[in-house]
Amino acid sequence: MVNSAFNALDWRNRNVLVTGGLGFIGSNLVRRLVALGAHVRVIDNLLPGHGGDLANLGDMSSRVRVDLLDLRDAAVLPAVVRDQQTIFNLAGQTSHQGSMIDPHTDLSINAAAQLNLLEACRAHAPEAMIVYASTRQIYGVAQTLPVDESHSVNPVDINGFNKLAGEGYHLLYNRVHGLATCALRLTNTYGPRMRVCDAKQNFLGIWISSIIRGHPFEVWGGGQLRDLTYVDDAVDAFLAAAEPSMAGRFYNVGGCPPVSLLELAEALIAANGGGRYVVREFPAARRRIDVGDYYADDKLLRSLSGWQPRLSLRDGLGHTLEYFRQHIAQLA
Amino acid sequence: MVNSAFNALDWRNRNVLVTGGLGFIGSNLVRRLVALGAHVRVIDNLLPGHGGDLANLGDMSSRVRVDLLDLRDAAVLPAVVRDQQTIFNLAGQTSHQGSMIDPHTDLSINAAAQLNLLEACRAHAPEAMIVYASTRQIYGVAQTLPVDESHSVNPVDINGFNKLAGEGYHLLYNRVHGLATCALRLTNTYGPRMRVCDAKQNFLGIWISSIIRGHPFEVWGGGQLRDLTYVDDAVDAFLAAAEPSMAGRFYNVGGCPPVSLLELAEALIAANGGGRYVVREFPAARRRIDVGDYYADDKLLRSLSGWQPRLSLRDGLGHTLEYFRQHIAQLA
Repeated sequence: MVNSAFNALDWRNRNVLVTGGLGFIGSNLVRRLVALGAHVRVIDNLLPGHGGDLANLGDMSSRVRVDLLDLRDAAVLPAVVRDQQTIFNLAGQTSHQGSMIDPHTDLSINAAAQLNLLEACRAHAPEAMIVYASTRQIYGVAQTLPVDESHSVNPVDINGFNKLAGEGYHLLYNRVHGLATCALRLTNTYGPRMRVCDAKQNFLGIWISSIIRGHPFEVWGGGQLRDLTYVDDAVDAFLAAAEPSMAGRFYNVGGCPPVSLLELAEALIAANGGGRYVVREFPAARRRIDVGDYYADDKLLRSLSGWQPRLSLRDGLGHTLEYFRQHIAQLA
Repeated sequence: MVNSAFNALDWRNRNVLVTGGLGFIGSNLVRRLVALGAHVRVIDNLLPGHGGDLANLGDMSSRVRVDLLDLRDAAVLPAVVRDQQTIFNLAGQTSHQGSMIDPHTDLSINAAAQLNLLEACRAHAPEAMIVYASTRQIYGVAQTLPVDESHSVNPVDINGFNKLAGEGYHLLYNRVHGLATCALRLTNTYGPRMRVCDAKQNFLGIWISSIIRGHPFEVWGGGQLRDLTYVDDAVDAFLAAAEPSMAGRFYNVGGCPPVSLLELAEALIAANGGGRYVVREFPAARRRIDVGDYYADDKLLRSLSGWQPRLSLRDGLGHTLEYFRQHIAQLA
């Protein structure tokens, strides 16, 4: 699916930087950009236990420049951002539980490192358009559903507060320093190259890993409502948000109509042609930072960019299962 | 005024830590606590250009233990927090403009250092009540007036995002880890020992410095509405918030009925028995991070603790001018 139907940018020969480009969403975005003809540079710190994996771009090594650099190292950034026209800033620590165990690392990656990037852009790439990968986690427990951009922010974990700061910096550098920035508040995103060895990115990863191995997967709780974004649709959203007219705001990204976790479990089994799950009580340590029901109102992004999700949940789950059956080694 | 009318705590022989205790509000709080019979320990980093000044407690050296330590140095904190029963956490970077020029220092003081303190308390003082000095800056531009605690948060500068994170951590450590924490969102606070050499804490400081020297002071804009808290009333609020039943929330602290900056200028001249000011256009760099009108609805704090401000604006300004006339050296 090589197109960028949702905005007017011509990606051919465009200089594009993707931070966190070896991660799940980042690597899918990189692959699309390369297919669209962009000159793509990736930086990723490949922090152990986080999302990055060289295998995600293993077949692209001749077409993408990949540097193992860390946004926390401010000194390297001027040379990285110089001459970039678009910067997709996906480098982040995504584990909610991890942020509670090691709050300082989460803070340094999701806040301090973001300041490094913005300061580097301010000095060395003031014309670049920057799209920041933010998160619904900023809203915390939804007071009304669906959640639109006017919903109050009330993070329930350290990660949420630090991502709120990182997102805030981006929009502040637009308003105060004139950088062209925007942010996407992503919900649960799934698809090829997602992390399936644990739940640090998404509970659905372990479900997929288990069902492909023929093991029952665990549904914690089950009644919670969520929306899910197929990664190609998320990539579409990033491309759409890179249009300069989108600068200065944050946008919700939704996807499929909301489903309960039990409905999602059933949909996964249907897409897989079989499988089983067990329902478990929510573990106490996770319950304290769980947000309950969430689904996004993403009309703002749709109306301003024309973006809309293209895949149904059924098709998205089908593609995802097919990918991991063909890449069974990634399940390890 | 040695009492703590607004809560039931007996401060005699209580072990109390005040971080940032050499600063403006901190040192006033320390003096009150000593008068109430508490065993007070102060830590302050005396960062040049920030609020701390040894002179603020110069006459108290035999009655207060003061250590020049920095919350950013996690290693020193276990010994500091151990055996403390109440912790007033006022250490912070307060300059809005400073946070835009040096965002990393603001982040390290207002966010990373706060994690250090909370982690130390979690391990070594899990029973302590912690009252955090937060700020109205978190609200950003008021959408409705007066601003109550349900108002959306939308900081307009780096300082606001970092203080939001620091405050958020405190309440999160209550909810998730069971620490007894609360936060006070302070507005413009004034009184003896305020910083009067520049506007890093409060525009009113330079006004006072100028008027006492017989110089005209500058009013930037003039129409903006603000409420002001006299520091003794702010100290009352901290004491009231230290009651364990206050844990788990943040509270606005207001003070006098709202006045425009021009009305405040006139009130200062009346309290001083003369003086003059010039109205200047708001400098562009400051305008971009100015919040416009603000005044607090502080009914929540009043109703839960019985706190109320005791001094009128006129009396507060009078006491403040009298103090600085007697401490003319602090104007330098």
